[in-house]
Amino acid sequence: MAGKAPTEGPLTADELQLATRNRGMPLEALRYDVTPTGLHYLLTHFDIPAVDPSSWRLEVKGRVEHPLSLSLADVRARPAHTIAVTLECAGNGRARLHPRPVSQPWLVEAIGTAEWSGVPLRDVLGAAGILPGALELVFTGADHGVQGDVEQDYARSLPLAQALRPEVLLAYAMNGRPLEPQHGAPLRLVVPGWYGMAQVKWLRSIEAVSEPFEGYQQSVAYRYQDDEADRGEPVARIRVRALMIPPGYPDFLTRQRYVDAGSVLLQGRAWSGAAPVARVEVAVDGRWEDAELEPPLGEHAWRGWRYAWRATPGEHALSCRATDAAGNAQPVQQHWNYQGMGNNLVQVIPVTVRSGR
Amino acid sequence: MAGKAPTEGPLTADELQLATRNRGMPLEALRYDVTPTGLHYLLTHFDIPAVDPSSWRLEVKGRVEHPLSLSLADVRARPAHTIAVTLECAGNGRARLHPRPVSQPWLVEAIGTAEWSGVPLRDVLGAAGILPGALELVFTGADHGVQGDVEQDYARSLPLAQALRPEVLLAYAMNGRPLEPQHGAPLRLVVPGWYGMAQVKWLRSIEAVSEPFEGYQQSVAYRYQDDEADRGEPVARIRVRALMIPPGYPDFLTRQRYVDAGSVLLQGRAWSGAAPVARVEVAVDGRWEDAELEPPLGEHAWRGWRYAWRATPGEHALSCRATDAAGNAQPVQQHWNYQGMGNNLVQVIPVTVRSGR
Repeated sequence: MAGKAPTEGPLTADELQLATRNRGMPLEALRYDVTPTGLHYLLTHFDIPAVDPSSWRLEVKGRVEHPLSLSLADVRARPAHTIAVTLECAGNGRARLHPRPVSQPWLVEAIGTAEWSGVPLRDVLGAAGILPGALELVFTGADHGVQGDVEQDYARSLPLAQALRPEVLLAYAMNGRPLEPQHGAPLRLVVPGWYGMAQVKWLRSIEAVSEPFEGYQQSVAYRYQDDEADRGEPVARIRVRALMIPPGYPDFLTRQRYVDAGSVLLQGRAWSGAAPVARVEVAVDGRWEDAELEPPLGEHAWRGWRYAWRATPGEHALSCRATDAAGNAQPVQQHWNYQGMGNNLVQVIPVTVRSGR
Repeated sequence: MAGKAPTEGPLTADELQLATRNRGMPLEALRYDVTPTGLHYLLTHFDIPAVDPSSWRLEVKGRVEHPLSLSLADVRARPAHTIAVTLECAGNGRARLHPRPVSQPWLVEAIGTAEWSGVPLRDVLGAAGILPGALELVFTGADHGVQGDVEQDYARSLPLAQALRPEVLLAYAMNGRPLEPQHGAPLRLVVPGWYGMAQVKWLRSIEAVSEPFEGYQQSVAYRYQDDEADRGEPVARIRVRALMIPPGYPDFLTRQRYVDAGSVLLQGRAWSGAAPVARVEVAVDGRWEDAELEPPLGEHAWRGWRYAWRATPGEHALSCRATDAAGNAQPVQQHWNYQGMGNNLVQVIPVTVRSGR
């Protein structure tokens, strides 16, 4: 990723500008099965574009038998599906890495779950008729800007087999309401299980191509790189993670947590883009025990967990970690990479337990 | 405000934690008359509390003839009003001050306009019957935490005369929908013209008192102080401000703007809590000219403005500033204060104009 090199230095003015524009989900909102729309995380690369839904068209082109130009009414006329999907920014956890890659400085809050409604992508692709030789689909949004000295419309590709999965949606509604502009109105891609970069917003065109797409957001950004010279591996599915609702009540400035001694129900959510969540563990002061899993919310959404803690006065460190059915587990030591992608390091919450209240 | 002293140093980890929790409005959203709900600014002192609307009650007590305990249905049964209101955090602009007060590090984005629906506060106060000798009303929310070493429920007061103004609402809906949790569900106070600290969310009680309220958020926080020892003056109404939609398109990391040479329509919004906006001026490279004002959106909401610019290739600095009908104008040099309150310093946007495209 062209730009500034990772640093051990303090947060820069560029990172602060990004942090005040983009939006994390405060962790107490892990209490909601479905994140209230206004609390879902948001990462906008360039500006939120102004798209007029009445003149908007979706072009389906390239290696297709029948190129399509669809109005929003055309899309909405097709049979609709609704799926609960947990999304996470691939850069979540970046600002907890040492040295710190210089970009949007997420700690752990770039997450959210919504009920997305729309048309399965494969239905539209079926109508267009993908021709033999098509390898990938390139999705291009209306958002435009410069990144790494490259002027670009935001664009990402998916391999054909991924794009044809039944859960991949062209979504026009979120939580039962038309998309708000910042979530990609009038139409966006939703690829359950994949990190946020795949979820192209303000979608304008879908092109079937016979060569691997080499756009900036595919071949330069969103790579697991060891260093700047490393081509790296593409970022794809969401790595397994559990997060905890910070218990008790906070200090405004430091966010230090205060908990009253006695029975405390620790709760949170866990998810993985690779396989269902199989296990969540909680540690109090480093001693790991199994948490109780709640019924799944859906195949592509986070799963609740709970753990009863008998809190004793003093300072304690609370942690949680998840393992998925494919055996992926969260690291307790960081897997550093140059762009700060996919950092699912275990969360640790220091708490002060107070007695005699 | 007890806490860390203002600093010329880099952004601290505490400030980053606050910046990733709280939410600014990206300035391109100045294009909307009414801010999409999920783009409105949010400053949450402690945690967003979990309030069960079915058991929730609003207590009206203290120096009243008829203490009330109202359910949400009781509140909703009264005649409803809807008002468009521009809200702004009193700390907006804090991180642009030198030295920088250490708290939520807003640049300029802690703003938003919504259509709030609810019951005029004075109707409920009329039903309770304010007794002679009542001086202020104390509004207490369900949000709880520690600030400046003081454990507290968030609470603020209003002088009786302010509380009785017809535009002050007990609001249960925002933009035509029930409040989302983060905006104060099930009921919040909306005090048009005042900075955000007066807009008590998750409202639980209203108490009529005969002495000035001395709670933390009234007597310690939200003061215009010269230094820590200064008692200072209370923060109250929103200072006059204009902001511009950054024109052209951005660089992802630096947010540097690129504009194509030729005719560019500069647009934005202006507001003041003291009086209607009377004038907006735009400067290109320091030369001020009047912008054109759009029709007012309402008495308590921002007003659109526009200015046609003939952009010539090269580097330029764009600014805007507003003046209200009471003669208040924005400063071009900062009015520093210890807590970083009410910084309405003029915005400056550097842009690079490109030719030959």
